[in-house]
Order: sequence, then C-alpha cells, then structure tokens
Amino acid sequence: MDHLKLKFIIAAWALCLTVVVKAQDKNQLVYTDVASLPLTGKVLPTKNPYHRVDTATYPALPKAVKYLLTQSAGIAVHFTTNSTKIGAKWCVKDNKPGVNQVPINQKGLDLYIKRDGQWVFAGVGKPSKECNEGVLVQNMESGTKECLMYLPTYDETTSLQIGVEKNASFRVLPDPFSKRILIYGSSITQGAAASRPGMAYPARLSRETGLNFLNLGLSGNGKMEKAAADMIIDIDADAYILDCVANPSPEQIKERTAYLVNTIRKAHPKAPIIVIQSVVREGGNFDQVIRKRVADQNTEIVRQVTALQNAGVKDLYMIKGKSLLGTDHEATVDGTHPTDLGFDRMLTELKPQIIDILKKYGIAGK
Amino acid sequence: MDHLKLKFIIAAWALCLTVVVKAQDKNQLVYTDVASLPLTGKVLPTKNPYHRVDTATYPALPKAVKYLLTQSAGIAVHFTTNSTKIGAKWCVKDNKPGVNQVPINQKGLDLYIKRDGQWVFAGVGKPSKECNEGVLVQNMESGTKECLMYLPTYDETTSLQIGVEKNASFRVLPDPFSKRILIYGSSITQGAAASRPGMAYPARLSRETGLNFLNLGLSGNGKMEKAAADMIIDIDADAYILDCVANPSPEQIKERTAYLVNTIRKAHPKAPIIVIQSVVREGGNFDQVIRKRVADQNTEIVRQVTALQNAGVKDLYMIKGKSLLGTDHEATVDGTHPTDLGFDRMLTELKPQIIDILKKYGIAGK
Repeated sequence: MDHLKLKFIIAAWALCLTVVVKAQDKNQLVYTDVASLPLTGKVLPTKNPYHRVDTATYPALPKAVKYLLTQSAGIAVHFTTNSTKIGAKWCVKDNKPGVNQVPINQKGLDLYIKRDGQWVFAGVGKPSKECNEGVLVQNMESGTKECLMYLPTYDETTSLQIGVEKNASFRVLPDPFSKRILIYGSSITQGAAASRPGMAYPARLSRETGLNFLNLGLSGNGKMEKAAADMIIDIDADAYILDCVANPSPEQIKERTAYLVNTIRKAHPKAPIIVIQSVVREGGNFDQVIRKRVADQNTEIVRQVTALQNAGVKDLYMIKGKSLLGTDHEATVDGTHPTDLGFDRMLTELKPQIIDILKKYGIAGK
Repeated sequence: MDHLKLKFIIAAWALCLTVVVKAQDKNQLVYTDVASLPLTGKVLPTKNPYHRVDTATYPALPKAVKYLLTQSAGIAVHFTTNSTKIGAKWCVKDNKPGVNQVPINQKGLDLYIKRDGQWVFAGVGKPSKECNEGVLVQNMESGTKECLMYLPTYDETTSLQIGVEKNASFRVLPDPFSKRILIYGSSITQGAAASRPGMAYPARLSRETGLNFLNLGLSGNGKMEKAAADMIIDIDADAYILDCVANPSPEQIKERTAYLVNTIRKAHPKAPIIVIQSVVREGGNFDQVIRKRVADQNTEIVRQVTALQNAGVKDLYMIKGKSLLGTDHEATVDGTHPTDLGFDRMLTELKPQIIDILKKYGIAGK
C-alpha cells in the first residue's frame, strides 16, 4: 500500500469515526452547525454570523459600541424538525455575568415552537461554561414542529450547532417575521434583565405581532453618537424606533437628537421614526439626583422632538413613558433595568401605540 | 505606668481607632451589626440569627432541608433612620449562582422605604464576592424614613451591618407585619427566580397586605416528609399555607398529605390550612413527561385534600392553580420557576383567595 493510499484510508476512517461520534453523542443527537445558514433577526449581514453589525465597516464607532455589536441579542434560528428532542452545542465568551442578570439570558438559548399560530415557550439551553451542550426539550409528540431558537442576549456567540434525533428532519428557514423595524436603544432594549433571550422586549414584540423588530440595544451605550447615526442609516428598515434616552446625558440629548433624526429622515425619507421616552428610574424613587437626571432626559427629548416636528420633519412620533413600568415600583431588578414584569408592562403601554403608528404606513404582521 | 494601665490605654486607643475607621469608611457611613437585634420574617427563633430554623433541634430532617433552612429567604431588618444615604456590609457563603438566578436575589440585599403608607422600592445591595459592601440608596431628602431591608434569598447570610451617615439616627424596630402566616413550599415559594429578595412572593404578600407571610420555601425539597411536618408544628402561626406540590412525586403526595395536614390540625386546631396546587410547568408545553407529572401531582393533591375534607378535617381549603401563570406561557425563566412576571400573575390569582379565607378567621393586615 503506498503512502497516499494509507493517508486516504486513515482520513476516510477518521471521517466515519466522526459520523459515529456524532450519532453516539451523549444526548443521542445529530448536530448541524448553523453558522452558514440563514439567521433570523439580523440587523445587517455580517462576516461573523452571530455579530449584529460588522464593526470593521464603521471605524468611527466608540469602542464599547463595537464590542456590544458582537453580542448576539435578538438573533435566532428559525427551523423545522420532526425530532421529539432538540438540543444544542454552543460556545460563548468567558464574560462574567452581571449581578443583575440571569445566566440563561446572558449566555443561554431559548426555544419556542409554534402551536395554533402562536409561538409557545418550549425550553432553554443552560450555560455553564464557555462551551455548552444541552437538551432544550424532549419527550415531544411526533410530527413536524416549527421552531425558533434565540441566541444569547449579552454575550458573543462564537458557535452554534443544533441537535436533533438521528434520522429526524432538520431544515433552517428564513426569518419568519415580516417587514423590518429597527429598535435602537440602551441595555433596556438589549434585554439586560430579561430572564431568557426571548423575553427581551423586541423579541416579544416580534413573536406577538409577526413583525420583525430588530434589536440594536447597546448596553450603557445607546448614546446617539454621530458615528452611531451614520451606521444606523445603513440598516434598511421600514420603521425606526429610538428608545435611546436612558444612556445619553440631557446635554447629549440636546446636542445629538437632531442629527440622528435628520440623518435617518434623509436616508429613509418615508420610514416613520418613533421616539420613546425613557422608563421611570425606580432608583429615583428616593435618590433625588437619579430622579432629576431621568426627568431632565425625558424633558429634553420631548423638547428636541417637538422642535424637529415644528421644523417640518414629517413622520416623526413621540411616545411618552410616564407609566411604562406600572405604578407599584416593582418592575426592575435594580432600580434601572426592567425585569420580565417590567417588559410586560412596557409592552402593555407601548405595543398598541407602536402598532397604531405602523399601521398608518401599511406595516402590519403576517 | 503599670502593665494593667498600659493594657487599658492600648485597648482604649484601639477602640477609638475602630470608631475612626468606621467614620472614615469609604462610603462615609457608620455601621451597626444587626445580628443581636430583632429581625423581621423569622420563622422560629434561632441561634444563628440569619437561619430560618435551628436544624440541630430537628435531627430527623433530610440533609438538604437542613441546609436550605440556613438560607435567609424572607428575613429582613425593619428600621428607621434620618440618614440620606443607606449602605451595608454583608457576607454570604461562596455558593455558585444558579444559571436561572439573578445574583442580587441570591446573595444581595433589597431595600424598601415607606411612603404614603406603602412600601416603595429604594435600592439594592449588589453582591460580588463572599463579603460585600455597598450603598443601597443615597441623595435622599432629610427626615426620618421607615425602612425594610431584605436579606439574600438563596444563600446563607453570615453577617450584616447596616450603614448610615455619621450622626444620623438608626433604630431597629420589631417586625412591621401583623399575625403570622406560614408558607411551606418549594423553590417557587423560596423565590428562586425572583429578581430581588423582596420579590419572592411571600415577601410581596407581606408588603401588600400588612400580614406577616413567613417564607418556608425549600428549593427542590418541600416534599412533605414526616420530619418536616413534625418541625412545622413547632412554628406558631395563625394560618398555614401549603404550596408544596411541586417537589414530591404523585406517590409521595398520596402517602404524605394526610400526615402533614392532620399533624398541623392537631397541633393548631383553629388555624386555617390552605393548600395550593402547583403552577403549570411551562416545561410541559411540549414535554409530555413533565406535563403528565405535574398533572398527576395536581390531581393527587386535590384527591388527598378532598378526602381529608370528607373525613371531617375542618378549616382546610384548596386553591386550584390552573391559570396561576397566565395564558401566554411567558412567566418562567426555565419552564419551572416563575419570574417576577410569574409571581405577579400568581398573586393576582392567589392573593384575593387567600385574603378571603384569612378574613373568615379575623386575620387581617394593619
């Protein structure tokens, strides 16, 4: 046997072994790497599929913004399978969880399955280290299921393989949501204190309306910088929601709002722009400094948007935020970040107002 | 100078130094150790003030139950101060946080201040290691505040000092809630996936009703063992709520319910006993095994309670749990544990039913 033949046989044997190893995985699942397959909730196409924006294209962006754009908030995989068990192997960076965060939300996976036309929670992928493996749901009825698996909200996903039973079907589908509504914002938009990736409020809006709300939440850094505005206009969307009052100072809101709004308006002349006041900071219930800062931010954004409307900027809307978190002061984890309870109350207020505006522009869910 | 005098001078100097060190603390606060002061929400008096039950007194309890009873779930400090800044130094054990848990809830502190007769969220103590130090709220108006600071829900608190400004008043008060209603249960009762210690549902019930709901939630271990029943009867209460269907198997529910209920009834002949069905497990939306187990648990508890009622056990009530988490399947972190959203929905259902029963027995909040 010549050397080349031997090499070939070894390679073929290694390949077979790999296949066998796959089938004999501890959860008895066969995995597909989804890196090169279509993903749901993508803000822009990117080289690294799990990044939100290719930051190399935007050198002027602040370093913190670039970093946050590598986190997979809002990205999901839409697929069908007839497997009765669904698992995953995924890797994230070794970031320390925030003390106000649930690891499942930060680094985990969140699976929904369509039932009677509704996306219904099915299970989570629990993270324990950089590279993780787990069954999200099992013991299901037979038959084909339409699935939506959300990626980690607050970490960079470096790889993802979805596992189904041997001989089960597995097909990745295009984004199930219609139109594109970009939400640019803060940690609240990104979903800092959601319990699971699918509970960040843009994700909930998508599942509940059928419209594609895209998560451009930037924890602590949705500050309306010029470089951010110049990046945002490259994101083609049917509507732009600006939920970015929480991070910039009142002075920055004064200086930056007009450029952001005018830049979007010029690049996307017909798309409605909806500005949302910041939620009440429960940290300001007794801390007068926090209370004043948020009041000043919210006053300044109304002043700026009103001035722009008066100056003739069309299709520009303002949603006020006074009771976005209810009235019992119990809807945040730390006085700043809404929990799932906070998001639920926000959506009760925001969703009908957003939908009403979008409807005027023919933007409606499937 | 004789030796004794020298010793005295050194001791006095050390004492002064301690005082100076206290006053020059990095947050400019003066701390009081509350270990020997009255605590709120105590199930039983204990040698270690931050334990819920002295487990040495109950050698027959399962090891896991003993361990969980060292965790400070539901314990709080009620105090007044005229300080405009409140901080704390506290130590917990080095337990790894659960992937479904927020560290602030597991190991942190949660502060409320009374405003217009309502307990209003003021701030949290953020944990980062075993011994922590932080400001919970600052920049407050002058004047005396009535405060309630909850201890960690899912860890053993080994020490707690509360800090107020130099020259500010600080006075620990007795438990502000009236009567005593014990809630024996699972991780749901203990508050596994609450966002903060004060968001576990017994704590919310206390603040909202003025009644003293005592947290005897035992994560994964509220299994109605004989030894647990024999311990529970030592806890003097005006009512007993049994929210302990989640952990025992249907067979254990069948075997153990009668002993638990009869033992409480015998020891506390006049106290109402309220049994609550388990919340729907969202993990059973598609997993047929989970779905069947929870259905069997809930069926069995109804069967057992009905049999006891039919056998003549008085003042025994059953609250059914079908829609305790709402209908959108979004109220848990992991398919099992309600988030703050889940607790909010549970209370919407449970609170009026519990209050109605308690009222019949003259048990009403201040």
